[in-house]
Amino acid sequence: MTTLVFGHKSPDTDSTGSPLIWAWYLNEVKGTPAEAALLGEPNTEAAYMLEKWDLPKPRIIDGVEAGAPVVIVDTNNPAELPDAINDADIQAIIDHHKLVGGLETKGPIDITIRPVACTATIMYDLIGDDVAGMPTAIKGAALSCIISDTLEFRSPTTTPRDREVVEALAADLGVNVSDYAAEMFAAKSDVSSFSDAELLRMDSKAYEVGGTKFRVSVLETTSPATVLSRKDSLVATMPKVAEEDGVDQVLLFVVDILNEESTLLVPNALVKSVAEKSFSTVVGDADSVVLPGVVSRKKQIIPNLAV
Amino acid sequence: MTTLVFGHKSPDTDSTGSPLIWAWYLNEVKGTPAEAALLGEPNTEAAYMLEKWDLPKPRIIDGVEAGAPVVIVDTNNPAELPDAINDADIQAIIDHHKLVGGLETKGPIDITIRPVACTATIMYDLIGDDVAGMPTAIKGAALSCIISDTLEFRSPTTTPRDREVVEALAADLGVNVSDYAAEMFAAKSDVSSFSDAELLRMDSKAYEVGGTKFRVSVLETTSPATVLSRKDSLVATMPKVAEEDGVDQVLLFVVDILNEESTLLVPNALVKSVAEKSFSTVVGDADSVVLPGVVSRKKQIIPNLAV
Repeated sequence: MTTLVFGHKSPDTDSTGSPLIWAWYLNEVKGTPAEAALLGEPNTEAAYMLEKWDLPKPRIIDGVEAGAPVVIVDTNNPAELPDAINDADIQAIIDHHKLVGGLETKGPIDITIRPVACTATIMYDLIGDDVAGMPTAIKGAALSCIISDTLEFRSPTTTPRDREVVEALAADLGVNVSDYAAEMFAAKSDVSSFSDAELLRMDSKAYEVGGTKFRVSVLETTSPATVLSRKDSLVATMPKVAEEDGVDQVLLFVVDILNEESTLLVPNALVKSVAEKSFSTVVGDADSVVLPGVVSRKKQIIPNLAV
Repeated sequence: MTTLVFGHKSPDTDSTGSPLIWAWYLNEVKGTPAEAALLGEPNTEAAYMLEKWDLPKPRIIDGVEAGAPVVIVDTNNPAELPDAINDADIQAIIDHHKLVGGLETKGPIDITIRPVACTATIMYDLIGDDVAGMPTAIKGAALSCIISDTLEFRSPTTTPRDREVVEALAADLGVNVSDYAAEMFAAKSDVSSFSDAELLRMDSKAYEVGGTKFRVSVLETTSPATVLSRKDSLVATMPKVAEEDGVDQVLLFVVDILNEESTLLVPNALVKSVAEKSFSTVVGDADSVVLPGVVSRKKQIIPNLAV
C-alpha cells in the first residue's frame, strides 16, 4: 500500500516541497512505495517552485482512508490535517512547530521535531549521506523550502543549520540565493488571482487567547502596497470568514519581507486592543499599524498575542 | 536554571537510567546544567543498576514548577507525569512509546520518538560520536536500560539496533550480557519488600477499551511462583487499588521472563471475558490463565485488549 506524504492544509512552499523530498527518500532510498500529496492548492510561491524545478504537482486529496499509511510533515496539528487523521496509520511525523497535542498513533512511530526554521532542513539531516543521491529537482525543492520558511534568513526562526543547508544546496546547484529568493518572493507576492476570503485564509493558523478565537493570517510579500490597496474589501470580508471558520476575529498581518516589518489591519476596537497589548504600540484612530521587525508568526506574533 | 531530566512515574530501569544518561550529555557535552530526577522510588532492578555502576540515586521530585526547564524521557503521556507538566518549560522529549497526545509545548522543541525497545538506544544514537567520552557508569546505565526493556532480546519490541547497541556497550565494558541480565532479572524478581498494592502499581499503565478503564499491570520476573504464591491477597487488593486509581479493573500479568509466557490473574467474569476475547484462550473455572509467548504489554497485550 502506497504511503501518502503530506503537509498542512493551505500548502505553502514547505508543505508542498517537503512531501516531495520525503516521498523521493522513501521510494528511492528506503524502498517504501510513497506518494507526495497536497491538502489543497499550493500557494503561488509553491507553484513557482514546482515549475522552476520541473516537479510534478502532487495530487490534491481531500481526506485519508482509515488505516491508510501516511507520513505527516510540517505540522503536528490535527486542525491543519484531514478530519479523520487519527484513523489513518500514521507512520512518521517530521515537523518544526510546537507540539500542540491531539495527534495519536497506534504504536510507537518515528517522530522528529526540531526547533529549526523548516521541515526540509530536518529532512536533509535525516537523509544524511543519501543526500548525495538526490536528484537536482529534489535538491531544488529543499532549497526552495528553506529560503521560503526563513524569508531568505530574515526570519528570527532561522538557525545556523538552516543557513548551512541552504548554502550547501545552492553551491551544489549553482544557484544564486539572493536572485532565486527574489524570484520566489515575487511569485508569492502575486496575489491578484485570489479573492479577499482566499487571501485571509492563505497562510492562517487558528489561535485562542484569553477565550477569544483568532485566525492569525499572514501574507508575506515584497509588495505590501498591492495587498494594502485592497484593505477596505479585506476588512469587509473578515466577519464572513470569521463566522464561516468558527472564530471571533481574523487578524491579517501583511509582512513586508524586504523591509522586515508587518502591517496589521485594525478594523475594530478588539483588534486595536490586541495590537496595543501585544506589540507595545499605539494605534490611535488609524485603521492599520506598522510593526517594525515583526516577520514571524511563530516567534513574534503568536507568543506575544494578548487580548 | 538547571534542567530537570526525568521519565515516568513508578520508574523502572529505563526511566531511572535514561535521565542519568541525558543529564550527563547535557552537562558534559552540551554545557547545559542538568540534573536527573525521579518521579518515585526506582524499582528493585533500577536500584540494582544504580548500585552495580556506583551511580548516585537521582533526587525524587513530586512535581515541577511552572516555567522550570525539563526534558521528558521514556514517556509522552501526561498521565505518567506531574499534573502541571504543561506549565513547565518542556525543552525536549525522547521516547519510544506511541504518541498519546496531551503534551503541549510553548514553542518548537526537540522531540525524538523512535520505534525501538528502549529510550537509551535512541540516546546512544543522538549522542553519536560523543559516546566515546561517556564514563563507564553512564555506559553501564545505557546497557542496563536496553537489557531491561528488551528482556535480554526476548521481547518482541527488540529491534536490531537495540541489540547492536547492547553488544557494542557490553564489549566496551567487558560485560557478559547473559550473566549481567540474570543478575538484573533476579533483582527485579525480589519483590518481597512490596505490599500487594505496590506490586499492582509497580509497572502499570492506564488503558481504556470499550468504555472500560483498566490498569494494565505487568510484573516481569524470573520467579513467577513467588508472585503467584500471593495470588489470593493480590486479587483481594485489586478492588481497592482500582477504586483509588479511578479505574474499573486491575489486570495483572505476571511475565515469566525466562520461559517467555505470562500468567494473567482472573478474579472475576470481566477479566475472564477480557482474557478469552483478547488472547483466544479458554479460562474455564480457573483463577488464572497462562498466555504462551506473551511478554510485551506494548506489542502483545495492549493492541489485543478487548472487553
